[in-house]
Amino acid sequence: MTAPRDPNATVRVALLGCGNVGGALAELLTTRADEIAGRTGMRLELAGAAVADLSRARPFAMAADLLTDDAKALVERSDVDVVVELIGGLDPARPLVEAALRAGRPVVTANKALMADCGAELAELAAANGVDLLYEAAVAGAVPVIRPLRESLAGERVSRVMGIVNGTTNFILTRMGDEGMDYAEALAEAQRLGLAERDPTADVEGDDAAAKAAILAGLAFGSDVVAADVQREGITAVQAVDVAFAGRLGYVVKLLAVAELVDGGPDVSVRVHPAMVPRAHPLASVRGAFNAVFVEGEACGELMLYGRGAGGAPSASAVLGDLIDAARNLRAGAPAPAPRRSHLRIRPVSELRSAFYLSLEVFDRPGVLAAVATVFGSHDVSIKAMEQVGLGDEARLIFLTHTAREGDVQATLDDLRQLPSVDRIGGVLRVIGAEDDVSGG
Amino acid sequence: MTAPRDPNATVRVALLGCGNVGGALAELLTTRADEIAGRTGMRLELAGAAVADLSRARPFAMAADLLTDDAKALVERSDVDVVVELIGGLDPARPLVEAALRAGRPVVTANKALMADCGAELAELAAANGVDLLYEAAVAGAVPVIRPLRESLAGERVSRVMGIVNGTTNFILTRMGDEGMDYAEALAEAQRLGLAERDPTADVEGDDAAAKAAILAGLAFGSDVVAADVQREGITAVQAVDVAFAGRLGYVVKLLAVAELVDGGPDVSVRVHPAMVPRAHPLASVRGAFNAVFVEGEACGELMLYGRGAGGAPSASAVLGDLIDAARNLRAGAPAPAPRRSHLRIRPVSELRSAFYLSLEVFDRPGVLAAVATVFGSHDVSIKAMEQVGLGDEARLIFLTHTAREGDVQATLDDLRQLPSVDRIGGVLRVIGAEDDVSGG
Repeated sequence: MTAPRDPNATVRVALLGCGNVGGALAELLTTRADEIAGRTGMRLELAGAAVADLSRARPFAMAADLLTDDAKALVERSDVDVVVELIGGLDPARPLVEAALRAGRPVVTANKALMADCGAELAELAAANGVDLLYEAAVAGAVPVIRPLRESLAGERVSRVMGIVNGTTNFILTRMGDEGMDYAEALAEAQRLGLAERDPTADVEGDDAAAKAAILAGLAFGSDVVAADVQREGITAVQAVDVAFAGRLGYVVKLLAVAELVDGGPDVSVRVHPAMVPRAHPLASVRGAFNAVFVEGEACGELMLYGRGAGGAPSASAVLGDLIDAARNLRAGAPAPAPRRSHLRIRPVSELRSAFYLSLEVFDRPGVLAAVATVFGSHDVSIKAMEQVGLGDEARLIFLTHTAREGDVQATLDDLRQLPSVDRIGGVLRVIGAEDDVSGG
Repeated sequence: MTAPRDPNATVRVALLGCGNVGGALAELLTTRADEIAGRTGMRLELAGAAVADLSRARPFAMAADLLTDDAKALVERSDVDVVVELIGGLDPARPLVEAALRAGRPVVTANKALMADCGAELAELAAANGVDLLYEAAVAGAVPVIRPLRESLAGERVSRVMGIVNGTTNFILTRMGDEGMDYAEALAEAQRLGLAERDPTADVEGDDAAAKAAILAGLAFGSDVVAADVQREGITAVQAVDVAFAGRLGYVVKLLAVAELVDGGPDVSVRVHPAMVPRAHPLASVRGAFNAVFVEGEACGELMLYGRGAGGAPSASAVLGDLIDAARNLRAGAPAPAPRRSHLRIRPVSELRSAFYLSLEVFDRPGVLAAVATVFGSHDVSIKAMEQVGLGDEARLIFLTHTAREGDVQATLDDLRQLPSVDRIGGVLRVIGAEDDVSGG
């Protein structure tokens, strides 16, 4: 472990990546230097900032001699105490983080892809070098999620973590619910407001949320899932009519990242899918681009951590909290505890049980309901409530099922697609928090 | 600083007080010993439990030789590493905590009265002895509030903290809102369910929330407010009709503990009062006996931390998180950072500005509205909305004001009481989160 060079407790920070979050962090470090020193007894000083292109304009004006395009050299410079990685992605972030840890420098990162895919290996490397690897900003931006799970709940038996961890999709679903917009319209608005990328795939298909689900599973259960292990469904198939129906039934539609013990463990389920959440559930009140993580534990009961999931300043706030922690631990020579990791079996979604909302468009002719109901029955999927709405010469049938095995519901859907009276399958949503809650079985 | 005695990283815990929380903690320590050791590398072992009356039955069966009625001797026993204080109140908790800290033993406490009234002195004593004083369970039970404020937001400029930190009053107000119950009826139900004491004064008059407001102010602003400094109004004057009206206007009524910078600081306001919270505000979704703390900061934006605010198991979960932290820091020889303290001026409520809801019962005769409106105008209190409801030969006038100085509103109320046409002043509620938000001025 490297001790800070300066006896006056100056801690020198190497910043890798200087976009929105990096710029906001540089600004906080500069404008709040005295304030932070007064509170923490440490002066956090920018040793340098590595960027890909020295000629590009920076969101925060930085002394030119702080900038470099040689990140590797910056990480290994002898006057650097702590490294902040805000490049994102795996390459070159991963080798740079490894180099920093090997050089005995604590690393703070906001990189969800890196932590989802290499979190276990990097945590081991950090532990072997006796330094911190902190990543509060990688999940839910400014919301304290990682630290509470790792420290406050260190002795807790967590049974489930459910997160609204993607602000783009939550914004889209909120607009669909509030204004009756269809998906394409709400997506276009999100793009206009800068809340969705021009290519929104990573958000709307659930990939971003899947990386965060993997991280949450690691924290809550020590499970070594990576993003690719996480079964995911995005929100592109969710229709305005489904959201409106959910509303009439007392639910809101949310894209959830779920990590839970199946049947009390040790098997886990880690998945991302849209779900109907009862309006009285705390997650239902998470609107627009906000994020929240809902935790259920044996002794603690239900907890929720809520706030801004993205944006330069909120993410920089989380990075700054980690940075102060890392600097303090470095001075004390005692890194934060690393989460344990173990290989837990991931239960495929088909083996889980859940209540479902299903929407079918059918040709409105005699006998159609009987035919459809027979298919449900043949797969042991029991119907709790049904509603039929006219739709020209078609009709829409909405079903709420009792808890059923997912595999049985998928088999039901496969058979329904073969029925001549069924035109198409519309929305398929899991129902959360009902008396029939999601569980394994 | 005392190092743990056992090279196998056994950390021995002295438990002071063995009621609901203490019993639940003893149970967690016993039943999860292996699990905790596996995760943390430390074996937490109960060294002894001090109780007032050895003959009383315990919620958790404990080996008889662990029990003692000599708390002082237990705290100072040479085989004790960490002390957990769950007695509550100031005496004998305070001298026992002081003795433990002086003996170089970290202390974990759930004692809000102690931390509100002696937090600054005890934190100094802990720092002087190089050990931890942790108190996550003192505010909002299982909800991680203290650690996020102290660590995650260590570099943040917090502007306001608003908490629903008393489950009893939140339960009562929730029932009044859901069922139209009046206060006495909802209180009786809370008492039946064991959610309110037979003498509910400390809860319903805001005293419990005031202690927590003082602790939150210390954490957020380093302010050295004690509970007695906190201006408080309870919920006993809130009527069913006020809650119903708030509902019709799109608000819910909540008892809030507020600590905020006035006009950007350094003056602070620390207070407890019922308030109208817009239904879309995250605090509005905190129902029943749940607690939540809502934090606003310059970079992080809005955060909310939500969960179970009381109860044996949830509080024990928070104590256990602190205990693991304290044990780890003790082994590392590096205590957690103590919050800084400073003497900030407390701005009296009369100098603040807020929008108000006011309910008046008046004799229904010509000219009454003109007389009332004249009083408002004479104190520069501007009316935003008014509604009149018949009430036999009386009428109820409901006013929503624009933002006004509290002192002016109080003067208005004083004058209104003198008006012959005004029978009585009903509910007076501050309105939160409107475009006219609470602020100093």
